[in-house]
Amino acid sequence: MISKSFCKWVKTTCAPQFIDIIDWVTECVEESQIANGFAVVFSKHTTAAVKINENEPLLLDDMAAFLEKIFPRKHDYQHNNFEIRTVNMNEDESPNGHAHLQHLLLGTKRVFH
Amino acid sequence: MISKSFCKWVKTTCAPQFIDIIDWVTECVEESQIANGFAVVFSKHTTAAVKINENEPLLLDDMAAFLEKIFPRKHDYQHNNFEIRTVNMNEDESPNGHAHLQHLLLGTKRVFH
Amino acid sequence: MISKSFCKWVKTTCAPQFIDIIDWVTECVEESQIANGFAVVFSKHTTAAVKINENEPLLLDDMAAFLEKIFPRKHDYQHNNFEIRTVNMNEDESPNGHAHLQHLLLGTKRVFH
Repeated sequence: MISKSFCKWVKTTCAPQFIDIIDWVTECVEESQIANGFAVVFSKHTTAAVKINENEPLLLDDMAAFLEKIFPRKHDYQHNNFEIRTVNMNEDESPNGHAHLQHLLLGTKRVFH
Repeated sequence: MISKSFCKWVKTTCAPQFIDIIDWVTECVEESQIANGFAVVFSKHTTAAVKINENEPLLLDDMAAFLEKIFPRKHDYQHNNFEIRTVNMNEDESPNGHAHLQHLLLGTKRVFH
Repeated sequence: MISKSFCKWVKTTCAPQFIDIIDWVTECVEESQIANGFAVVFSKHTTAAVKINENEPLLLDDMAAFLEKIFPRKHDYQHNNFEIRTVNMNEDESPNGHAHLQHLLLGTKRVFH
């Protein structure tokens, strides 16, 4: 069995943002010249999730509404309390507790055939 | 390393429905004659999830109650608004916004040893 | 391609408990002497999930608060009703419906590069 790795930078412009990467994944699979196997798609940031679902614009609106309802951006997350927090503090640290919790449910990667 | 693929059609009769596929997966693993490795179980429909959990009937009732509570079947999903929706519309399109959102959380596949 | 398997026992002392296993996973990867590939981290218990996220103490508090809010420990789970339940009943069965439902969302394993 052969294994090939590919890397892609994705820049988001708002949050949440749904970015369709199926064309890129298809290109990688073709370039790998592997006919039988599976692809692992993995995100290297813990606020960026990888999911498989239907890319229908109104459904994406439903998903965004759900994520905001379960984990509202404006909420009293301890992770956003920079007065008491000491771990992983950077100069440009942003209050992204909601994004980490959304990611907790959505997950880091997908495997597909 | 050897890779083997198997395919199974599953027909649901209600929703949500929990279908135990462990016997089928076990048969596939035996048929593959692979002793050391992992199995990727993948669903090809974005309203059918694959999960690993305890197959205890009362727990499945709890799961169904939870899914209905978080994503009720009767809710104002944009994806179900066929008067404004234009993408992926089929003749027999059903109002399945709740199923797509449930799937968003549950996920498409499982990998196990 | 080469495949290597490793097993680790983890004992929890409270619930929910977040246990960082990255050092152990790193050791396994080094011991495997595989430079290009992916690691599958899999939990064999359906109340123990494997997730990738930021190990920041206040964020872990946020996660615990979220899990308790969505699936409170004290709730009328059918799975915990030992007067009517008959399947998978052990002598030391504990009322862990909340843990199974939390696991339903969090998932059993992670795959990463």
